[in-house]
Amino acid sequence: MISILIIGNGNVATHLYKALLNIATVKVLKISSRNITVVPQADISILAVSDNAIAAVSSKIINSFVVHTSGSFPMEALQNETNKGVFYLLQTFSKEKPIDFSKIPICIETTNKENYALLETLAKTLSKNVYAINSEQRKALHVAAVFVNNFTNHLYTIGKDLCKNNQVPFEILQPLIQETAEKIKTLSPEEAQTGPAIRNDQKTIDSHLAMLNPNQQNIYSILTKSIQNGN
Amino acid sequence: MISILIIGNGNVATHLYKALLNIATVKVLKISSRNITVVPQADISILAVSDNAIAAVSSKIINSFVVHTSGSFPMEALQNETNKGVFYLLQTFSKEKPIDFSKIPICIETTNKENYALLETLAKTLSKNVYAINSEQRKALHVAAVFVNNFTNHLYTIGKDLCKNNQVPFEILQPLIQETAEKIKTLSPEEAQTGPAIRNDQKTIDSHLAMLNPNQQNIYSILTKSIQNGN
Repeated sequence: MISILIIGNGNVATHLYKALLNIATVKVLKISSRNITVVPQADISILAVSDNAIAAVSSKIINSFVVHTSGSFPMEALQNETNKGVFYLLQTFSKEKPIDFSKIPICIETTNKENYALLETLAKTLSKNVYAINSEQRKALHVAAVFVNNFTNHLYTIGKDLCKNNQVPFEILQPLIQETAEKIKTLSPEEAQTGPAIRNDQKTIDSHLAMLNPNQQNIYSILTKSIQNGN
Repeated sequence: MISILIIGNGNVATHLYKALLNIATVKVLKISSRNITVVPQADISILAVSDNAIAAVSSKIINSFVVHTSGSFPMEALQNETNKGVFYLLQTFSKEKPIDFSKIPICIETTNKENYALLETLAKTLSKNVYAINSEQRKALHVAAVFVNNFTNHLYTIGKDLCKNNQVPFEILQPLIQETAEKIKTLSPEEAQTGPAIRNDQKTIDSHLAMLNPNQQNIYSILTKSIQNGN
């Protein structure tokens, strides 16, 4: 039985707590970061707070092994004087939408081997995809995640705006969006690239630009050039 | 029984031909656009050729009803002297990957009602999602498709490059990519937006920019600003 303390109130803390409640080999407790005057003991204390609160909250925790869940902050951001680690869930969490933890990649890092084994045991109770990722690699993954998640989602927003301006339901684009994501399970994204940019079809590119607002034109031009330059 | 002639050799022609072969109420024949000296008669002649070949190929077809499959070209690009229409499949086709036609949105347009009814009958044998879309709306959909498909796929390529440069397997990003696409089935993309841009987290933005090459920095900055300006 591993005892887990989750500190935090956000989406990651909430989803992680719910998932761990279902694991028979784990005993889990969750507290708000505001209540850290009395911190219960635990084998692993998971700090699921905003990046900028990691230093302040961790400095008040005397538990033996403290990990944070941040993608962008290094392990050394933790200010506790005991053992440190990272437990990074590479997924996007919404308050409303339930999530299947078994497919979430869990990236772990620790300062020593015993803690690694403990954190790996915990990670494997939740997910099949557990990776040893150091702070530098995790930072790269985090910026990559911004491209494939945050920026991709913004392109969906632009697609929706273009539909709306032309009285077309956004749902028409849904199967294309799903297939675009599906496709790269079997093809590399370089192989999957299609469209006027990669075909150097300047006539279509010009006719598209003429339909867009200045911000959309800017994004269209820069991504088109990036596709054509292959970088 | 509707008789269909497909003219073309590309991915759309090939996938459409295969799909129609399975429909009992349809008789389908496929020829290359190079063989248009002898064009067989058909109720609907579907020109699935590259955009720039539509005018030249259609001018040689004397069949009663000719449609093209282009997203960006208007119905009037057809140069046949008989009835015209458009049969636009809003999906991305790869040579290798089979595709489920039942979910593909089919956007149709014709010059008259009888042709519309005929084209709609054909479309409904293939897909549940059939839409009446005029040339202007289709052009907007086509540019929206470039954003949500071609540009999104390029963001996947950038994500892959960032992984590669840091010895991290790209597969780690796969569940996030799938979830990002899944999420907007239940949330609007505006509601689904997360990340440092929407949080105005300048510290994380700056640390990300420091890890990128000039082209990636450019794309990162422009998409971040666009998310922050809400357009």
